[in-house]
Amino acid sequence: MDKGKSTWQKAAEAKRQAILEAIPPKWRVQHLTPPNDVTGTYIQRFLNPREIEITEADAVSITTQTNSRKWTAVEVTEAFCHRAAIAHQLVNCLHEIFFEDALKVAKELDDHLAATGKPKGPLHGLPVSLKDQFHVKGVDTTMGYVGWIGTFQGRKDDSRARVVESELVRELRNLGAVLFCKTSAPLTLMSGETANNIIEYTYNPNNRLLSSGGSSGGEGALLALRGSPAGFGTDIGGSIRIPAAFNGVFGLRPSAGRMPYEGAANSIDGQNTILSVIGPMATSVESLRLLFKAVLSQKPWLHDPLALPLPWRNDIDMKTQKLIEASARDPSLLAFGIMPHDGVVHPHPPVEEAMTFIKDILQDMGHRVIDWTPELCKEGQIIADKAYSMDSGEDLLSHIALSGEALPLQSFIGKSKHFNAGEVAELNVQKREYMKKYMDYWNRTNDMTATRRPVDAIICPTAPYAAVIPGKFCHSGYTTFINTLDYTTVVIPITFADKEVHTAEDPPQFFNQLDQKVYSEYNAEIYHGAPVGIQIVGKRYEEEKILALAEYITRCVKMYSDEDLEGSNSGCHGIDSSLLSRQRWV
Amino acid sequence: MDKGKSTWQKAAEAKRQAILEAIPPKWRVQHLTPPNDVTGTYIQRFLNPREIEITEADAVSITTQTNSRKWTAVEVTEAFCHRAAIAHQLVNCLHEIFFEDALKVAKELDDHLAATGKPKGPLHGLPVSLKDQFHVKGVDTTMGYVGWIGTFQGRKDDSRARVVESELVRELRNLGAVLFCKTSAPLTLMSGETANNIIEYTYNPNNRLLSSGGSSGGEGALLALRGSPAGFGTDIGGSIRIPAAFNGVFGLRPSAGRMPYEGAANSIDGQNTILSVIGPMATSVESLRLLFKAVLSQKPWLHDPLALPLPWRNDIDMKTQKLIEASARDPSLLAFGIMPHDGVVHPHPPVEEAMTFIKDILQDMGHRVIDWTPELCKEGQIIADKAYSMDSGEDLLSHIALSGEALPLQSFIGKSKHFNAGEVAELNVQKREYMKKYMDYWNRTNDMTATRRPVDAIICPTAPYAAVIPGKFCHSGYTTFINTLDYTTVVIPITFADKEVHTAEDPPQFFNQLDQKVYSEYNAEIYHGAPVGIQIVGKRYEEEKILALAEYITRCVKMYSDEDLEGSNSGCHGIDSSLLSRQRWV
Repeated sequence: MDKGKSTWQKAAEAKRQAILEAIPPKWRVQHLTPPNDVTGTYIQRFLNPREIEITEADAVSITTQTNSRKWTAVEVTEAFCHRAAIAHQLVNCLHEIFFEDALKVAKELDDHLAATGKPKGPLHGLPVSLKDQFHVKGVDTTMGYVGWIGTFQGRKDDSRARVVESELVRELRNLGAVLFCKTSAPLTLMSGETANNIIEYTYNPNNRLLSSGGSSGGEGALLALRGSPAGFGTDIGGSIRIPAAFNGVFGLRPSAGRMPYEGAANSIDGQNTILSVIGPMATSVESLRLLFKAVLSQKPWLHDPLALPLPWRNDIDMKTQKLIEASARDPSLLAFGIMPHDGVVHPHPPVEEAMTFIKDILQDMGHRVIDWTPELCKEGQIIADKAYSMDSGEDLLSHIALSGEALPLQSFIGKSKHFNAGEVAELNVQKREYMKKYMDYWNRTNDMTATRRPVDAIICPTAPYAAVIPGKFCHSGYTTFINTLDYTTVVIPITFADKEVHTAEDPPQFFNQLDQKVYSEYNAEIYHGAPVGIQIVGKRYEEEKILALAEYITRCVKMYSDEDLEGSNSGCHGIDSSLLSRQRWV
Repeated sequence: MDKGKSTWQKAAEAKRQAILEAIPPKWRVQHLTPPNDVTGTYIQRFLNPREIEITEADAVSITTQTNSRKWTAVEVTEAFCHRAAIAHQLVNCLHEIFFEDALKVAKELDDHLAATGKPKGPLHGLPVSLKDQFHVKGVDTTMGYVGWIGTFQGRKDDSRARVVESELVRELRNLGAVLFCKTSAPLTLMSGETANNIIEYTYNPNNRLLSSGGSSGGEGALLALRGSPAGFGTDIGGSIRIPAAFNGVFGLRPSAGRMPYEGAANSIDGQNTILSVIGPMATSVESLRLLFKAVLSQKPWLHDPLALPLPWRNDIDMKTQKLIEASARDPSLLAFGIMPHDGVVHPHPPVEEAMTFIKDILQDMGHRVIDWTPELCKEGQIIADKAYSMDSGEDLLSHIALSGEALPLQSFIGKSKHFNAGEVAELNVQKREYMKKYMDYWNRTNDMTATRRPVDAIICPTAPYAAVIPGKFCHSGYTTFINTLDYTTVVIPITFADKEVHTAEDPPQFFNQLDQKVYSEYNAEIYHGAPVGIQIVGKRYEEEKILALAEYITRCVKMYSDEDLEGSNSGCHGIDSSLLSRQRWV
């Protein structure tokens, strides 16, 4: 049956098959004819009520249960392994499956707790999934490259293959987490969709006609299906934020150096004009905080030479919480910049509506809302695009060349000329000057707030699309300018595309041809059910503050989205009920 | 009289003359026949007792006096302006002189204090000198380039020339500092000596046959002559530490991003494999702390996009102070790695003796002393040298080409081939792996300490030479590996070369030809009086800890160096008096 197939195709197919075979037979499903939306009741049919109860809890609830011995690590792990196995069979979201190892670790954790009465750490018994950039002993790290199968980052006969673990992995084990699978990523990682020759394409669980986003697309899809309560992705151009938004989950892109990248595989390693960063993705903001704080408790800076000695700063968290509390009495204490578009590509109707909704909520609550300029986005995007392409794609192409595999449609490889060191330096200066210009703009907003402090956060779309139609992701400008700025960003889900509501009746005045093209590709019918998430953007290293604000805004969005509000509006103040009917919430 | 001189020579001479003419006639000295050592009693002869009292106080004492209105800002400023004027005429250490502006600012500060009863800031009335990389309104920034005279960093007709100020300058003004002069730097900045076509050569005040070091050589020389109580230099390969050591003063090289570089001129701007950093230089460790802490109080991260949100961490300072206190009872609580040489070039006898002395002191006191490997130095030096040269010198040469000026003997311009972006990335990976290797080595020393903590600091020479003979600086390996590691380092003075004591009787087993060459250039007669300073090295971002340790070690060195010890050994414990006679102290 392999006739006519090239070596790389056979290798890819064998690996694809091996992934499936790593799923215990009892969890394999045959002859599926799933609907577009496989979340919720669809995937639940494969699970028993106990498994559903466990897997639909978020990481905070789960650790509460495991720490207090109400749930065992083994039963929690088994439930997630089962659900992840189903998830993969529905949307192709896994690269590596190591359920047996996970159950062994879970058993050890249960024994440890039974013997000592103490949980191993703040993540005791919590299953955690990892994007396939992190090395975990016993399994491959392919990052989607066929040429990396069975090697160490493409190097054959390297003794580190399947033996060494990344620093984050070491820390997660110390914290009591249970690693159980690695999630799919696109070839080269430089893509807003997830496709490679091994798993082929990772589809969106909310609508399998659509993309799960990228590059942490497997992570996003798995979380959407509750096949994992929490995981870690990476982001150099939106790769945590885009899949978080496209899958209706939460993601944190911290500033560079807070999470330990040491010992993880990467694309274009050593390109340091714009650094890729690691961040948590999860099904609640509170879970993002739990994971982020837990990793910091391991003092990554003692083991990762590029990690910064910035522990979790409780004072900043508390100060923000108090500010939020005080804003119940005086809402103008909080100020937000709202940027509905990036001045390059208009968002599709569902995204536009989400931005209007969030602006209306914040205004209705009395918070200070400022129109944020889109004028600075394009320059940031251009700088980022140059950084990604400065080696003319040589690194990426070298990994593709290992197997000679074909490039999936959605892969991005920079076409620029190869920069020399002088040109790299020039780009670094341009980037710094851009960061300064943006910083100065932000600082100047103190003229427009009630407190004379600059705005607390910027809110903007994550992409012009809700979860995009496969092959159509072509504008990363909403996320990449933030990588150039190295700003802290949390993505939260807002709504879903609704074919009845989000019609494209009034096309905007187009900025350019790309804008027109992207807008013309909106199709209310196809996009129906696609999640929409927005970005809450803070300055560099403001993770504690932005997590607290994201939690607050999520609370408010839920409140405004909830149809039965009577007696339950303690989290938000001054609600105008005319806003309430427009949204539905997960 | 200009006949036969080229345009650039005339321009350099005119600028040199203009610097001299900026000194008020009353402070100009004619027909000098100074001795080799112009510090101490020699320079004092130009000053009245009050001026001597003021200028020989350190920054901490001065601000105590100005804050409590015992000394006015005007009298303090005038005294330092006078002494700096003399200093420049003795060793060519200034690029820009703006005493009138300084006195005007000092007057305003006095008026402010009189009117409000409050000092403007923690540096109220403190004269602060700046290496000629910082832009100060009203004067040039040449960095030694003839082609930069009257321009903005070489750009003619740029409206920023003599108008904009660097971020550090803005912050120093906010803090109440009085800026009064800018100090000399070598052409290209990439040199361990200070020479350019404008001021020609900055000599060492302790021995004018020798170099003041570089690249912050003017700063070092001015401080040695007490023409300034404190200033700021920069360091990409030792440029704060070498002149601090060569001039017998103190210097702090913090890790990248703690002090604001925004808006300062630089060499090879945008090269970001190894970042140049700003740090304070002063006549006491306590002054380094005062300046460092004061700048951080301005929250540079709100105005410099590359500055990190790391305020002064009092908890780390306090913890270290308590550790030091506790070590009075149990000296093994403190552990130091001692690296007497870098495995590439042996230090000259005065430096070797200084290292033996410090090791003996620490051992004698009962602290844990560990032999630190020199094996990792060379790799760090090689990486740094590649980083400095990766653009094949194009940036440096372009600034030299502006005027067509000749290159002074001591200038370093990388001769490597021009790297491409892929090679830059490869070097960045090599650097990160090197940092990780060094970190792991350091972490493993927990096996050798009494506390099971890794050693608290490494102590090593700053250069193989005490202040070097002009033209002979050729090995920066003792400092550059630290730039590759981005480790926090404080330089403290230990001793002076003494022709009676530091004879080269037993040449070492040479590592290589360079080692032999450097050693052969030692000459006890010429080097007599040259200061020797050593490095106290901490991990990244350990400024609070290393400043506290440097203060403690300085106290101990003073104690052991003091011939009249009876009843005054409260700062150190367990002194063996046989060690005492070997050293003299400033």
